[in-house]
Amino acid sequence: MQFTKRDLTKKSEDVSEWYTRVVALAELADYGPVKGTMIIRPYGYAIWELIQADFDRRIKANGVQNAYFPLFIPESLLKKEAAHVEGFSPELAVVTIAGGEELGEKIVVRPTSETIMYQTFANWVQSWRDLPLKVNQWCNVVRWEKRTYPFLRTSEFLWQEGHTAHATHDDAYETVLWAMDEYADLYREAFALPGYVGRKSASERFAGADDTLTYEVLMPGGKVLQSCTSHDLGQNFSKPFGITFQDQDSKTQHVWQTSWGLSTRSIGALILAHGDDSGLKLPPRLAPIQVAVLPIKGADPARISELTRPLMHAGVRVKVDDADHESLGSRINTWELKGVPLRMEIGTRELDEGVVTLVRRDTGEKFQVAHADLAQRVVEVLDEIQANMLCEAEDFLRDNTRDALDYSAFKEILAGPRGFIRAFWCEDPACEAFIKEETKATTRCLPLDAPEERGSCVRCEKDAKHRWLFGQAY
Amino acid sequence: MQFTKRDLTKKSEDVSEWYTRVVALAELADYGPVKGTMIIRPYGYAIWELIQADFDRRIKANGVQNAYFPLFIPESLLKKEAAHVEGFSPELAVVTIAGGEELGEKIVVRPTSETIMYQTFANWVQSWRDLPLKVNQWCNVVRWEKRTYPFLRTSEFLWQEGHTAHATHDDAYETVLWAMDEYADLYREAFALPGYVGRKSASERFAGADDTLTYEVLMPGGKVLQSCTSHDLGQNFSKPFGITFQDQDSKTQHVWQTSWGLSTRSIGALILAHGDDSGLKLPPRLAPIQVAVLPIKGADPARISELTRPLMHAGVRVKVDDADHESLGSRINTWELKGVPLRMEIGTRELDEGVVTLVRRDTGEKFQVAHADLAQRVVEVLDEIQANMLCEAEDFLRDNTRDALDYSAFKEILAGPRGFIRAFWCEDPACEAFIKEETKATTRCLPLDAPEERGSCVRCEKDAKHRWLFGQAY
Repeated sequence: MQFTKRDLTKKSEDVSEWYTRVVALAELADYGPVKGTMIIRPYGYAIWELIQADFDRRIKANGVQNAYFPLFIPESLLKKEAAHVEGFSPELAVVTIAGGEELGEKIVVRPTSETIMYQTFANWVQSWRDLPLKVNQWCNVVRWEKRTYPFLRTSEFLWQEGHTAHATHDDAYETVLWAMDEYADLYREAFALPGYVGRKSASERFAGADDTLTYEVLMPGGKVLQSCTSHDLGQNFSKPFGITFQDQDSKTQHVWQTSWGLSTRSIGALILAHGDDSGLKLPPRLAPIQVAVLPIKGADPARISELTRPLMHAGVRVKVDDADHESLGSRINTWELKGVPLRMEIGTRELDEGVVTLVRRDTGEKFQVAHADLAQRVVEVLDEIQANMLCEAEDFLRDNTRDALDYSAFKEILAGPRGFIRAFWCEDPACEAFIKEETKATTRCLPLDAPEERGSCVRCEKDAKHRWLFGQAY
Repeated sequence: MQFTKRDLTKKSEDVSEWYTRVVALAELADYGPVKGTMIIRPYGYAIWELIQADFDRRIKANGVQNAYFPLFIPESLLKKEAAHVEGFSPELAVVTIAGGEELGEKIVVRPTSETIMYQTFANWVQSWRDLPLKVNQWCNVVRWEKRTYPFLRTSEFLWQEGHTAHATHDDAYETVLWAMDEYADLYREAFALPGYVGRKSASERFAGADDTLTYEVLMPGGKVLQSCTSHDLGQNFSKPFGITFQDQDSKTQHVWQTSWGLSTRSIGALILAHGDDSGLKLPPRLAPIQVAVLPIKGADPARISELTRPLMHAGVRVKVDDADHESLGSRINTWELKGVPLRMEIGTRELDEGVVTLVRRDTGEKFQVAHADLAQRVVEVLDEIQANMLCEAEDFLRDNTRDALDYSAFKEILAGPRGFIRAFWCEDPACEAFIKEETKATTRCLPLDAPEERGSCVRCEKDAKHRWLFGQAY
């Protein structure tokens, strides 16, 4: 699919088509030759590198260590936890031939690494002194898809998967909460994406978990997205895999486990959430290029380098676009499309007058800054853009979270603006399935801070204790 | 395989067994459940992270951008370059079932990414302005092996693969040389591993390359190892994949390409090269822990933190081992086994006297340093250790590179000390094959700086122009 810049659909008219085109036009990703696969282009991958650097710092500060486990899992190993294999079976890619020979036992390409990691954890953990064990890996995983929706739905994706083992359930649960706290903070502070933290219903949980926490975000058009999850695995894996330890009284016990993951899917959420009719809008903290410098014809390159050097020293990611075979207008379009937070235009006149012109991608605001103040002002303005983008996204989330007191109001919201719907639910899976069947809305989560109340289920009107969040998923 | 610390074989007696055990005992790697696969444990993976950080900085400084291409390659795509597919076919892992269905076309798990990348490069490159194109990816690749030799020979390994496309052969060849320069510098300066840079013979080249540069290093026991390679691909791929560009005269031309890679195999070389009978010996630049601090019973933890804080601020990677259920002797053994460059022992007396005791892993030298000088001295000593380790490795390489003037001398060296052998070769593949069959020694490379001379082939005595390096490969 080849588009030219003029082909960008208006986001306000067709979000889905806009998304497909902006991903191609901003050079974020391409389609791979195998169905469901994608190629992450350098500009898209640089966003992933910024996400990785941020999250990797967070987990290391908490004592989590990176490791690497094999891509290939023997089929028999995957089958050790019943719910787990049942959940993943329909999505598996299976190797049956290797080294020129038919294999005796089929090998599964990892869809997630619980089973292959936990077999080994059983060897690593012997005593209470070996706990907590906190391991993470950055890797690729495969869950078969027939249609590619770049970043958001792909057969292969990149992610981090954290896996921990603890002596007590309390200690494990603290880690489940800690991981979700870090995700929520990362999403707010770096992605400028506020969301809801809550518990998944039994039917929406991770295959093999006792409890799944999720961070749910709102997309333009009113659809919602599960952005990352943190699981309380209880002893569901430690029992079949025999991960035991001698406690301080020399008794043998099974460990309590957690796992939590964040994937390249998050880049899809970032693109969708912030763009507009002119293209991407990247929050400064995740922008591979924070300032695009556009010299106007005739501007002395040496003097421009002198101006940009202090910016780079201040840690700002700067790109000078001196492609003088393209008009200034065309270069401006390119950097708007690519969502660069700040544009700096500079010609001979500006150089002589000791000023530069800055243009904000978020507000379109255009203003001049003196050369002497440039580095300091740019750093300040980037912070302002980051804060402003979060603020806008918070307004959008608040304005699109609605209470539905009865089923007709519930359906009306879904027929109209959609977004998040707060409604009492009796917690009967049959009711949940009925709602999903009829409205395509699923339970997103029970917010962690939801108080216990008295109400009646939005569908069956039986007693209900909590207002859950519902929405139509991407 | 479970060993206890006492089970470390003497390196001087059995290098191969020592290697297997030190990998397990120092917690660098484990065996995966599928034949040929390995688990890189946190301590081993931290070494890989240091290698990655160093090399990633180098390539980005040269304008190379990271990207990510799919793991899965359609079989038909791999077949587009004849020599390439022939070289890799025996090692492929093949997916035949996915999403619960038999696939129409088989899918290969990437053994390397030339074919999948270059199909896409054909879309990315249109004009001379799009060149040079410089892309790299950090990823996993699979080349089937029946036996695992951790790091050195595994079915799945991690690597970086750089791929560039250029308007001219000269420009491409400059990149082939540049990549090899960076590898050689990384190996010398970070790994403390000197080696020979040279050209591979036609039979030892990468499948699909016109020319392969290699960095060859020497291992204890006299075997040699190809540590990384940089390939001149000519137009061998751009023609079948149709990667063309309009040059400045609007003529259509095929691009010239390069690829170059460095893998987790390099960690195997690092372990083998530097260890001794007590375990690993890590050069400070690749040591996840540079200073192991061992408080002696009774030493006040608060005062020890006060001492280590300035070290951490100076960028030194410090680990305080206060496992007081283990004796000091046992803790010393552990950190020697793990190859930590510098050990710091500190008890109440040292705290009161304002000194600490430092012990160098490379020389065993033990000395005292005043608290006030600690950070500065530690930084200096780490540099000295790094330099000393390189120096020792250089002596070893020089002492084990020998000239063989005739075939009996050649065989005598291989029967005795082995190492690198410098010998005239007529460049006839038949001679090379004969030598390999009879002596297990292969041509390693023609050093880039080898002068043209007049001599006669070490085997057939026909005219030869160059002295090649031979050796028995790991």
